[in-house]
Amino acid sequence: MRQHRFQKDLPFSEGEYERRLARARKAMERAGIEVLLLSDPSNMAWLTGYDGWSFYVHQGVLVFHDADPIWWGRNQDSNGAVRTVWMGDDRVIGYADNYVQSTIRHPMHDLAQRLIGMGLDRARIGVEMDNYYFSAKACHSLAETLPDSTIVDCTALVNWERAVKSNEEIAFMRKAAKISEKIVDGLLERVEPGVPKNEVVAEIQRDAIMGADGAWGDYAAIVPLLPSGSDAAAPHLTWDGEPFKRGEATFFEISGCYRRYHAPFCRTIFLGEPPEIFVNAEAALCEGLEAGLEAARAGNRACDIANALAAPLERAGIERGARCGYPIGLSYPPDWGERTISLRAEDETVLEPGMTFHFMPGLWMSDWGLEITESILITENGPAECFCDRPRRMYVKP
Amino acid sequence: MRQHRFQKDLPFSEGEYERRLARARKAMERAGIEVLLLSDPSNMAWLTGYDGWSFYVHQGVLVFHDADPIWWGRNQDSNGAVRTVWMGDDRVIGYADNYVQSTIRHPMHDLAQRLIGMGLDRARIGVEMDNYYFSAKACHSLAETLPDSTIVDCTALVNWERAVKSNEEIAFMRKAAKISEKIVDGLLERVEPGVPKNEVVAEIQRDAIMGADGAWGDYAAIVPLLPSGSDAAAPHLTWDGEPFKRGEATFFEISGCYRRYHAPFCRTIFLGEPPEIFVNAEAALCEGLEAGLEAARAGNRACDIANALAAPLERAGIERGARCGYPIGLSYPPDWGERTISLRAEDETVLEPGMTFHFMPGLWMSDWGLEITESILITENGPAECFCDRPRRMYVKP
Repeated sequence: MRQHRFQKDLPFSEGEYERRLARARKAMERAGIEVLLLSDPSNMAWLTGYDGWSFYVHQGVLVFHDADPIWWGRNQDSNGAVRTVWMGDDRVIGYADNYVQSTIRHPMHDLAQRLIGMGLDRARIGVEMDNYYFSAKACHSLAETLPDSTIVDCTALVNWERAVKSNEEIAFMRKAAKISEKIVDGLLERVEPGVPKNEVVAEIQRDAIMGADGAWGDYAAIVPLLPSGSDAAAPHLTWDGEPFKRGEATFFEISGCYRRYHAPFCRTIFLGEPPEIFVNAEAALCEGLEAGLEAARAGNRACDIANALAAPLERAGIERGARCGYPIGLSYPPDWGERTISLRAEDETVLEPGMTFHFMPGLWMSDWGLEITESILITENGPAECFCDRPRRMYVKP
Repeated sequence: MRQHRFQKDLPFSEGEYERRLARARKAMERAGIEVLLLSDPSNMAWLTGYDGWSFYVHQGVLVFHDADPIWWGRNQDSNGAVRTVWMGDDRVIGYADNYVQSTIRHPMHDLAQRLIGMGLDRARIGVEMDNYYFSAKACHSLAETLPDSTIVDCTALVNWERAVKSNEEIAFMRKAAKISEKIVDGLLERVEPGVPKNEVVAEIQRDAIMGADGAWGDYAAIVPLLPSGSDAAAPHLTWDGEPFKRGEATFFEISGCYRRYHAPFCRTIFLGEPPEIFVNAEAALCEGLEAGLEAARAGNRACDIANALAAPLERAGIERGARCGYPIGLSYPPDWGERTISLRAEDETVLEPGMTFHFMPGLWMSDWGLEITESILITENGPAECFCDRPRRMYVKP
């Protein structure tokens, strides 16, 4: 019997967490590991419900084959864990505060001692080697304190289990999509020559958190991106206080977020009369998006979407170097992608119903840029469904 | 002669970047390294001016003793780099997009090949082992491709050089502080029983980005934190759509941000009549803050602040397990701290004029919490100066 001191408001049903744990354990079996240390906050949340901005210190979830997972982190954050995870309070353990950003001790020494205490000093331990929140030092500190263990790289092992979304998750993404639509509607109203960019971002952030259709807004894993003119060649510049200018295109890369679930959505606004290069690029890009959505069918492969997109762009003389999409769902900063499948020519992953992607064929040329994108759901039959319902084109404000 | 294709709007003067580079090189000399790879976006920005939300892919700045630094990252982000760094365009290099989140190749293989091309295959290379953006896999991939090199842990080497702020930096933090004050003023106005939390956060975010006193607002490295009642025991829970309630305290942990510089500021609002436990805690905490500010003098040590704070709290029977502050300034998510000095009993770092801290003695008890904090500047003479100018107390709305 699990003991809980606090009432929980878990985002998902008990059955959902049971299915997730079962999937993770099967994947652990395939990887031949006895225990899995999750450091990716998205994986931690997906498996346990844990939610908090505590990923700037070392923390993790330990997954076992035959016992409930353990949340492990900073002492003060264990107060947040007992309030958010489905496991019993005895499955939450904290380390002392003088391990935090210390120059003389590392939190992974604490974790290693606990694994030794559980008799796991000779275990095969899976870790997420290529994750923001599992540093080179963390890996080294863990390994040096457990010299008889075997550290196995399980990067993205759980991320792959997240690829196909449940109906509960899709319902969250639909709520996020409503927020994305609201943000884009606001942009169309507010973006005008002379309006400072930060003022528009302020309203984006307000719309995002106010939410839509009764769903409150959570923080997105990436801040709004909205470079203009020549700067739109650079996809990841953030804003400043300069005004929007007539004769320039600005792309807006935004996402609504509902309880950590995202539905990214990008549109471009041209202020004034767009030159031919934009009009032609828009036509080719929209043709490519249409072709990509047609190709985004269960049974097809990730590369089929990329190749379908590429053909009309190539005919228009546009060469994109970058992948054109990635899986989306539950995320924490710094990325709203799931870091598994990539929509690109070399990725032959077979598409399944319930997979969700940001189909994101941004054009970042040497001194201009154009983004028109869709968050999509792979369905049982037929082409992909778009989460957002707004005209798929470049918006022109003359 | 440095060649630039684009006009730059660098946040700091040329002399400032020269001083920073000279400091970094001296630190490299002490560490006995020939080249330093910076992965911390704060260090990258501090040294080169680079600014972009691209830290979700592998990237870095290479620092040399006898040549300008090199910005290295994803091809599409090199467009952002040539627009933001002070180095010439030839010091910006990009890697191909199929290295991004690939299951078969790692961006560090690209970087290693470039180092080999520079004749640095036998070099002593400093890396930031304990950093969010230098994963265990990144370290492993770099080392395996450079088997004759020596990888040296230089975690926080540059962070330590950032501890003492220049006048230009302090001016930025003063602007951030004005934004922090504006946010807190708005909270006092808006927080009422029955108002949903997310609606208040929406206004915080709007205020933060609109900016204050003519300074536009940048995104803070941490989202607003505002747990109420029992949840305030957990310092890092984020918001939901539930209303504020009469009879509960909520602490608000926020920061204005100007061009990546922060001035965090926390205040607590009690709705209704606060019980004695809060009134007593507030009195002890304010006495501790006062004593800590007195102790925060050039020549004293970090621990002197912590010890001065602890005395009145102990007299009131309050035991804090956690450190009571950390250095602040330029930051990117997920943390607005600098991860060097900690204000705690075991840290004997000597305080110097120009150091800046978030003096942050949050009380997170088993089922309540209280935060009253100050961002402070160590001055030439006398006690620390507070960046924000607002009453230092618990705000009570009856």
